[in-house]
Amino acid sequence: MAISNAQLKLLQSLKLKKFRQKYGKYVVEGPKMVEELISNKSNSVHTIYTTLSYKDKLLAKGYIGSIVEINDKDLKKVSALKTPNQVVAVAELPDLENVPSLSVEKVSLFLDRIQDPGNLGTIIRIADWFGIKNVVCAPGTVDVYSSKVIQSTMGAIYRVEVSYVDYEKLMAKNGALKSFGAVLDSGQSIYDLGEDVPGLLVIGNESQGISPALKSQLDHQISIPRMDTKGAESLNAAVACGIICGQLIRP
Amino acid sequence: MAISNAQLKLLQSLKLKKFRQKYGKYVVEGPKMVEELISNKSNSVHTIYTTLSYKDKLLAKGYIGSIVEINDKDLKKVSALKTPNQVVAVAELPDLENVPSLSVEKVSLFLDRIQDPGNLGTIIRIADWFGIKNVVCAPGTVDVYSSKVIQSTMGAIYRVEVSYVDYEKLMAKNGALKSFGAVLDSGQSIYDLGEDVPGLLVIGNESQGISPALKSQLDHQISIPRMDTKGAESLNAAVACGIICGQLIRP
Repeated sequence: MAISNAQLKLLQSLKLKKFRQKYGKYVVEGPKMVEELISNKSNSVHTIYTTLSYKDKLLAKGYIGSIVEINDKDLKKVSALKTPNQVVAVAELPDLENVPSLSVEKVSLFLDRIQDPGNLGTIIRIADWFGIKNVVCAPGTVDVYSSKVIQSTMGAIYRVEVSYVDYEKLMAKNGALKSFGAVLDSGQSIYDLGEDVPGLLVIGNESQGISPALKSQLDHQISIPRMDTKGAESLNAAVACGIICGQLIRP
Repeated sequence: MAISNAQLKLLQSLKLKKFRQKYGKYVVEGPKMVEELISNKSNSVHTIYTTLSYKDKLLAKGYIGSIVEINDKDLKKVSALKTPNQVVAVAELPDLENVPSLSVEKVSLFLDRIQDPGNLGTIIRIADWFGIKNVVCAPGTVDVYSSKVIQSTMGAIYRVEVSYVDYEKLMAKNGALKSFGAVLDSGQSIYDLGEDVPGLLVIGNESQGISPALKSQLDHQISIPRMDTKGAESLNAAVACGIICGQLIRP
């Protein structure tokens, strides 16, 4: 079956958050991410649009859901990638507003308005690597189901639970959890915290850091000591998150 | 003095590496990066092209070199930014092929064909934060004087020495230096290395890692232990670099 105009329009509209929310769907592109989707969340797959070149491989993976053929010209129209890559899948958007119950014995992440899609995707990969189950985003954080974020998670999105909940609501349900906010200079050194420290690690916005209102509610403020005082102003937010996780979470 | 057509053409051409090399010049954009350039490398500044809105601020900073006014329309033509930002500076390209002498008591970085401009810029920020003086890039690493890399260093480029030298040449001059290559799985845990371990930290290409030829020459292979074995495949290269630096370099 070839793609219809209505399907083309739907796929194009899903580049925008408002239509993802309206239709409750999002788009995943390329063999690698589509295969991650199928193997991790097969029952959320709605339709897969594939070029002929990839169709046989898709069938060989055991996918038995809805398949629509798409030619290279139409693929280019619907793709958010610079170089469209054989296949796009439409999947059901999960409920992002559930307030999660977080383990007091584990590290979880809270992101205070991260704006860069690459940073959010990279942080979700960090969570996946370090076995962090939950990434909670303050409202105002970039949408995790935008194409750039999804693609930059490299599949980690299917193994980490992401939700959009404000700090007060999260803490109302998880009162026993200690929070650690990453600040630039004035916090306790991450090297003095000890190992295997559980709690909620809070990472702030790329240029503004953690908002003052949220900062005042943190249990602890922590910093990565700066070795060169001659000029370095900051670390990338995802890098800072990685360095702190590398310190807090050990085998 | 208003901008000439020849100057416009020069600025546009400097978006490409071949013209940066031909003319020995590169471009820096926006007040923040231009101010970092002036305060760190004032004698490398060739000409500053500024909108009227920023000219007074530039003069107030004590800049006494060549200034050319540029209007918003021309600024848009020469800018590599989505949102051009008041000012662009042309500076002299430093010699990137010097083989540096690296301290055996410090950590230095060797990047084996990092491709993503944002990753290279982020790694230079990491070096700046941790007081790493030298970042050596294998030929084939993305050009550090491309607009995206320069802008993403946030000024760190002016405090870290970057060179493009192959591993054999570097080691011919720095034979006493121990090398540590970051590999995905089979290396010694970074947590077992001890603190303040000096040497050359080698970070590989985003998708291929360290090349087999280089790997065979490493003194040590090290890995960041993965906590979740259910799927996480890798960490972003800059994040991995940050996590290892956070482990090796302590106050």
